[in-house]
Parts: sequence; C-alpha cells; structure tokens
Amino acid sequence: MATTTQTQPVLVAGRWQDSDCSSTFHATNPNTGQPLDDSYPVSTWGECERALNAAAEAFAVMRGLPSDRIARFLENYAERIDARAEEIAACAHLETALPVSPRLQDVELPRTTGQLRQAAAAAREGSWRQATIDTGANIRSCLAPIGPVAVFGPNNFPLAFNSIAGGDFAAAIAAGNPVIAKANTSHPGTTRLLAEEAAQAIEAAELPMGTVQLLYRLSHKDGERLVADPRIGGTGYTGSQSAGLKLKAAADAAGKPIYLELSSINPVVLLPGALQERGPQIAEEFTTSCLMGTGQFCTNPGLVLLLAGSDTEAWIADVVNRFNAAPVGTLLSAGVQRSLLAAIESLEQAGAQHVMSPSAPEEDRFCVANTALWATAQQFLAKPEQMQTEAFGNASLLVVARDVDEAEQVLACLEGNLTGAVYSSTTDTDNDAYSQLEPVLRQRVGRLLNDKMPTGVAVSPAMNHGGPYPATGSAQFTAVGIPAALPRFSALHCYDNVRPHRLPPLLQDTNPTGQTWRSIDGEWTQRDVAAK
Amino acid sequence: MATTTQTQPVLVAGRWQDSDCSSTFHATNPNTGQPLDDSYPVSTWGECERALNAAAEAFAVMRGLPSDRIARFLENYAERIDARAEEIAACAHLETALPVSPRLQDVELPRTTGQLRQAAAAAREGSWRQATIDTGANIRSCLAPIGPVAVFGPNNFPLAFNSIAGGDFAAAIAAGNPVIAKANTSHPGTTRLLAEEAAQAIEAAELPMGTVQLLYRLSHKDGERLVADPRIGGTGYTGSQSAGLKLKAAADAAGKPIYLELSSINPVVLLPGALQERGPQIAEEFTTSCLMGTGQFCTNPGLVLLLAGSDTEAWIADVVNRFNAAPVGTLLSAGVQRSLLAAIESLEQAGAQHVMSPSAPEEDRFCVANTALWATAQQFLAKPEQMQTEAFGNASLLVVARDVDEAEQVLACLEGNLTGAVYSSTTDTDNDAYSQLEPVLRQRVGRLLNDKMPTGVAVSPAMNHGGPYPATGSAQFTAVGIPAALPRFSALHCYDNVRPHRLPPLLQDTNPTGQTWRSIDGEWTQRDVAAK
Repeated sequence: MATTTQTQPVLVAGRWQDSDCSSTFHATNPNTGQPLDDSYPVSTWGECERALNAAAEAFAVMRGLPSDRIARFLENYAERIDARAEEIAACAHLETALPVSPRLQDVELPRTTGQLRQAAAAAREGSWRQATIDTGANIRSCLAPIGPVAVFGPNNFPLAFNSIAGGDFAAAIAAGNPVIAKANTSHPGTTRLLAEEAAQAIEAAELPMGTVQLLYRLSHKDGERLVADPRIGGTGYTGSQSAGLKLKAAADAAGKPIYLELSSINPVVLLPGALQERGPQIAEEFTTSCLMGTGQFCTNPGLVLLLAGSDTEAWIADVVNRFNAAPVGTLLSAGVQRSLLAAIESLEQAGAQHVMSPSAPEEDRFCVANTALWATAQQFLAKPEQMQTEAFGNASLLVVARDVDEAEQVLACLEGNLTGAVYSSTTDTDNDAYSQLEPVLRQRVGRLLNDKMPTGVAVSPAMNHGGPYPATGSAQFTAVGIPAALPRFSALHCYDNVRPHRLPPLLQDTNPTGQTWRSIDGEWTQRDVAAK
Repeated sequence: MATTTQTQPVLVAGRWQDSDCSSTFHATNPNTGQPLDDSYPVSTWGECERALNAAAEAFAVMRGLPSDRIARFLENYAERIDARAEEIAACAHLETALPVSPRLQDVELPRTTGQLRQAAAAAREGSWRQATIDTGANIRSCLAPIGPVAVFGPNNFPLAFNSIAGGDFAAAIAAGNPVIAKANTSHPGTTRLLAEEAAQAIEAAELPMGTVQLLYRLSHKDGERLVADPRIGGTGYTGSQSAGLKLKAAADAAGKPIYLELSSINPVVLLPGALQERGPQIAEEFTTSCLMGTGQFCTNPGLVLLLAGSDTEAWIADVVNRFNAAPVGTLLSAGVQRSLLAAIESLEQAGAQHVMSPSAPEEDRFCVANTALWATAQQFLAKPEQMQTEAFGNASLLVVARDVDEAEQVLACLEGNLTGAVYSSTTDTDNDAYSQLEPVLRQRVGRLLNDKMPTGVAVSPAMNHGGPYPATGSAQFTAVGIPAALPRFSALHCYDNVRPHRLPPLLQDTNPTGQTWRSIDGEWTQRDVAAK
C-alpha cells in the first residue's frame, strides 16, 4: 500500500534512528477496518545485530549497577506513562478498539504502571533472588540476571503486556536484564509512545543506552534467529501457538530459555448444586467473563462443563438470552476475526451446535456475533482435540455430560490450560463430584478457582498465570505476579569459598538492605549472617 | 555373545518380571576388559508402556499421600542400602573399577544414603515447595509434583548418581513423583542390587507398586519416546552431550521438561600471585583433583589458564612430575577410553602439545596415561571450539596467556560450564586481574570458586551443580543440593478463592508441620496465617 507518511524510526542503542527496513506496515483501526496513517518498519537482521550488540554492552554495565538504579528507572518510567495516560489510551483505543474507559485508561494503564512500580520495589528489595547461604560449607548462591531478554508482546493487552511496558518487560528489567522489545504489530503507535517515555526514563536514570530497545516487526526467520542468538539470555513471548512454537523450537535448539504464554480454553465446571442455588448469578458472571473485552483474554472461559438436567437446560437458555442481549464487541484485528470464525467452524465440524441463531453483524468493523456452542460430552470425547480448538474472542463451548464419570472423562482428555474453575453448592451436595473431578482438573491447569470466573488475573505474588504445556512452555513459572515472574529471566549463581569482599552484596554477611529475605542455614531471615 | 546365564528381570509395576527384551547385554569388568556373567535385557517399547502406565497409576495415588509416607520410604531405603553396603560396593567396584575404599564404600555410599535422608527431611518439612500466600487476594500457590520422572544416570557415579538411588532419583521422589529409572549400562548389577532394596522399601512404606521401576536399557528411539510421552512429567539425565541433546530435542518438541547435566571442562585460572605464593601446593591440589577417580568427574579441572612467566613454567614442570609419579587409574569402560583418546587427539590436532611423554600403559584394563597438554592462548583462540573438547578422564589442557587481556579473551570464548575457579594471591597483588577476569568467567559458569579445585560437590542447599548451556539444559537449576534440586520436578499450582478445606494442607491457614517456611504476604515465616 502506497503512503506518503514517513516511516517511524526504531529505538536502537539509545537512539531513535531510521530503520534500514526491508519493508513497512501500517496498523489498522478495528472499528473501521481502515489502515492508520503511520508507517512502521520491518527491521532487517542487520538491525537486530545492532540491537543485540547494544544489549550485550548494556548488560555488561548493568551487572555492576546497584538494583536501586534499575528501580528508579522503572518508577520514573511509570510516572511518565501516568503523565501521558490520556494520549496513550487514545492511541491504544484507535489501534485496538478497546474502550478508553474504563478498560484502557482506568484499568489497564494503572495496572501497567502499578506493575512497573511493583517490579521496582522487587528489584530494590531483592528477595526474589532467593539468596541461600550455607555458612558451614561457605557456599552461597542466588539468582542473577540472565542477559538480554527479547520480549514479544500479545495483541490483546496493548499496555499491561506491551513488550516495552508490560509484565514480561517489567520482570526482565527488574531482574537486571536489558530488553529488546518486539512490538505487537497491531498496536505499534501505542508501543512507540511508551518507548518514547522509556527512552527518556533510561536517560534520566543514567542506565546504559541499550537497556531498552524497540523493533516493530521482524521476519519470522529473523525472530527465530533472535531468540537463538548467543547474545540473548532468554525470551518472553505471549501470542499465538503457531508462532510461539516456532520460536520455541529455535530457542530450544540453541539451549536458550523461552517462556511462552500460548493458548488456553480455561475450563469452567458448573456442578448441579451451584446451578440450582444460584444459576442466574453464575450465568451473569459467565456472560460478563466471556464477552468482556470481546472475549479476547487468555483466561477467557472457552469451555463450560455441565451435568445434564433441567437446571442445566434452564441455565443454557439463560445464557443464550444474555448473549443475545449483550452488545457485540469489536475484535482486535481482521486476523482475530478470521481465526475466531475458523475456530467456530472447526468446533461445528467436530459436532458442536449453535445454541442461538447467530445474526452475524455485517459491518466494516471487525466483529463476530456473541457465540455459544453446545455439544454432548460424548461428542466431545469423540473428537477431543478438535473440540479444544481455542476460539479466541466472544465465543464459548458448553459441554453437557450425562454424569460425573463422563465429566471426568472430558477433563481427563484436556490439554494443559492456564486456569480451571469449579462452581459448587455452598452446602455439601456437590462435595463428592468436586472430590472426583478436582484431581483430574488440578493436573491440567496452572490456577484452580472456586466459584469465580478466570478472567481476573491479580498481580499477586501467589498468582500463577501459567500452566502445563501447551498453555505455556513451562508449568513451573508464572508470567503475571511480582516477584514471582522475575526468576524466569535469571540464572543460578553459586559462590564456593569466594572471598567475602568479592561476593555480591546480597550474599555478604551483612544484609545489604536489612529487608531482603535470605535463606541462611535453612532459615528464611532478614538478619545478617551471625558472627561466629 | 552367547551366554548360558539367565537374563535378569526388570522391575515393572512393583514386580520383578521377565523382560520381553529385544536383546541382552553384559557389563564389562574395566580391570580385565572381560564381560561379567550376568545378562541384562534391552527393553522393548511395550515394556516402557507398562512402566508408564504403572507410573501414571502410582502418581494418581501418591498425589493424595502425606509427604511423611514418601519420607519414610526414603529413610527405609537408605537403611537398607547401608545394611547391604559391602555387597553393593563390591559389585560397583567390579563394574566400574572404582576403588571400594575409600571411594565407593566410605565416600560415595554414605553420600548416597545421606542424600536419601536429606531428601526425606526435605519432603517432610515442605519448605522446598515455596508456599506463597496472599491473604488479601486469597490466592495461594506452591510447587507440586509434576508426574512420573524418567531418570537416566551417568557411568561415573554408580551410587550417588545412580538412576535408582542417586541425586535425581532422591529429588524426584522427594518432590512426590514416581521414578522410572533407566540404568546406566556400565553398572547394571549395582543398579539391580539397589533396586532390590528400593522395591522392598516401597512395600514397607506401602507406596504404590509403580512408584519405583527399573529398566536396564532402551533403544535410542525408545528413550526419545519415553521422555516425550504424555504420561511423563519430566526427565533427569546425566551423561554424554550427544545422547543428552537427542533426548532434549525429543522432550522439547513434546513440551516436556528435561534437566540435563552434560559436559564441562571447568576452567581453573591460576593468577601469578597465587603461583608465586604457593605454586607447589596448588600443583598438588590440581593433580589430586585432575587424577582422582581417574579424572572421571563432571567437575574435573579440564582447562587451566595461566599467565606466561617463570613461575608458570616451574608450575607446569612440577605438574608434569606429579602426573608422571601418580599411578594411572582404570577408566570406567572401553567407551570412556576410546572417547578420552579421541579427545586428546582432537586437542592435539587443534595445536595442543604434550608436556610430558606419555607412556601409554599397554594393559588389558581400560586406561590412558595421565595426560597434561599445553597450548598458548593464541593457539586456543585460533580454534576455541576444538580446544574445548571435553577430555573426560585423567587429562587436562594447560593454556598459557601472555597477559591478563589475552586470558580474558580465552575466558570470553568459553561455552557454558558447571564451574570456574580462580586462585589468587592472599595479598592484593592479583586483585586487578581478578576484577577483570571474574565478570567474564562468572557469566559462563554455575559455580564460581576461589582458591579451591572444583571436584568436591557438597550436598548443600546453596550448591549449584548446574550452569549455562551446554553444560546443562537450564542455567536456573542445580542437580545437586537438597532441597535446591527438588523444584526441577515440580509444577506451580495456584489456588484462587479455593475454599479453605479444599486447599492442600501446606496452603491452609494452619502451618501443617509448624516448621514449614511459607511466604505469607511477603514475609517468610513458619507461623500460621494470622486470624483476621
């Protein structure tokens, strides 16, 4: 597409510089289907090389800096984002069609700056490094930064998981690593505004020029080269399974860690007692959870498992009414619309039926009718893989089992998911069913919920926004939650008989902050190592 | 090779049963080069299937058991090994040629049972699970067992890293997982004796029959299938890089975690002040470290980096004398002998020279003369990859740099290693050199030592027996050290709004042991959650 606008520069080695791009692209306004004005570069491998060299240089300096310096950068950056909140939210709205209020400006932006501030506090405090001191053997160890981190952000959180401001970014920086951010191509303008503030904050904090860099787009091949490059310490990726698994294969072959957050259908089990007790309330919670943000959450409840009976029939009818009555949200992109339609078709081919006659909105904007599909557990069990097709967006599959045994069979063939929820009676009528189903569900999800839809992902130290493969690349780590998300971007450094003054401050006898939790001879404490 | 002895049974699903093996093999006595009597089976995939099913069934039961039951098994198993120590050490000597005393019976066997007991204590105490409680959000999480673990043990530790008794085994079991042990084929008899005691201890502890299983050998293809099987939770592997990387590729493609401990040359930097101060003492330490166990340690000091000068020349001459004077140990197998000779040849081809005329012992036993090779840093830098060939056994490469800058260049091109050591003057004469070299070395090793050879690997909670790829598959985890080695075989389980009585005991308000360390609202404590 021809355009007269100038192509935006990339942020490499601390300078906004013209890209030696191989081609350019434009973002699209999802509300109109029309391209937006600004032109963004697709970087070449040469540009990646320069970014990698700058990141490696930055890392060599960062390793020697006190974590307070990094914390001050994160706080200053958060302040700057807050100061420019209105402009950033407006741009994000233009590029994603997500509402400015409450979503972008009142929820996601404060979450983003909150994460940056929490990450700053975690970096300063240092407990995330799990310092372990064995005074008898004089062996000491702690987690240490792993090296430059490449961050690939998703389309659905233009701020809170933006590659240059979101969860992975905050975790990687707070852990002491430079970041090479690869913008999500559906919101390059939002990413640019954030990067402008990041660059200013880097300068203010006097961090090395290559601490934060931004490229807008890479060829698939260059993306795979990037995550496998010797100068890279590790990668955080949130996005589609197909692209993610290609990056994983490349990183794995090079022995480089990569943390992936991929697809998840987030099963929700509704036990009979719960439906009988509070069916309409659950229908309301489910509808809100499923349609919020046009369903474009990784924790969207895409699969509801019910037991056959009149309460279930009534509940489904209730949901249908609510879905019909709810406004149809706009989807993030033509690609999301295409994938959602394809997923619905795939579910239908597997035997699922529409429980409502969808009146597909014929509009310029990207959208699909609110969709509830229905299948029996038997149908599900006949084609379990296809029935687990992720319908990313405002759609969900309701599966009705004849009894608890059949429900257990459905859960038993689920792949790894981020979350699994069970609603049960507040009395003990569902206890047996819960006891039978919970162990099966527990093994297949990262976060298990009771009486709660999965879409709220609190930034809690106890959060697990992760789960068994293929929901993520590793069942052991969370992408949300501070300081829990930081260790992903670290390596274990052990010091054996190293002379006291040569130890990092964190491992010296004196607790450097007086507040850092360290495990000394098996006891977690904030105290100094006792004098002998 | 024809034989009249009966083929040994495998331990599958709690029963010693005849293998439906595809073929058989014999161990070899390294001291004679002759095959030993017993015949062992190469299992088929069908046998793996049965083991996998039994492991999956065992895991379903184990998840519900108190960790005390697992701890009692480990302790009972340790007792049984101690009671049979003499027989086990004798068998291990026959199969490995490692000396019964002090090595096998006085050092390695007590280390093995000590590890099992430490693992029992860790399982019972539960702090390794890093329970994290956010009372405000009512979100709680902890590490939980990951599922059946396949353990592939190495040839060089027939007891302490035996697949059915060693470090990975103890860690996997203590973390609550069943183990499918794949014996190292150089010491199947030792492994059988241990497995006999394990099976008895399983019965005594009333653990599920499939908690511990033993196969002796698999085809490479079946090994790759095993680590990628959906029933497997994860894998621990210690051994050669080539076999390990094939298993890694298979596990990675299936999204299954695999922890590899591969090769390492363990650079030792000897700074001028140290040589001047205590050259002979260091030569003695080095010789002992390099030749102990015929050098067959993953932490064997395979690369010594020195700065040119008369002290270095004297030191090398001293080492030559010591190497010549030291007895030549027996190697573990014909394969180890072959690989060592090939590695020495590869180093020679890269430009390294013998600093002593090797009088290759011409004997029936497997052995190679104690070997010290020498190269300039320039030679090293010309072929850095080939110069890092691991010579597993009683051989080491001494590299002499002209100055500290050149030494830094050598360190900068090192691959990931388990350890790196620096010897320096006890005064401050080596401080500048240390400051220049340490950051480069630090990034390339898991454990950094001062004034100490790397071969002692203490079972300490602060130990890191791990390091950057390709020394291991992940720089974040250690294979030695309890409880530090346990989290490898776990997944993060989060409970969001889950009703109190449904939480695992570890996450309930009351601290289940009164001693488990938990992080409650950011504070590590052994206390209960405070009543509101």
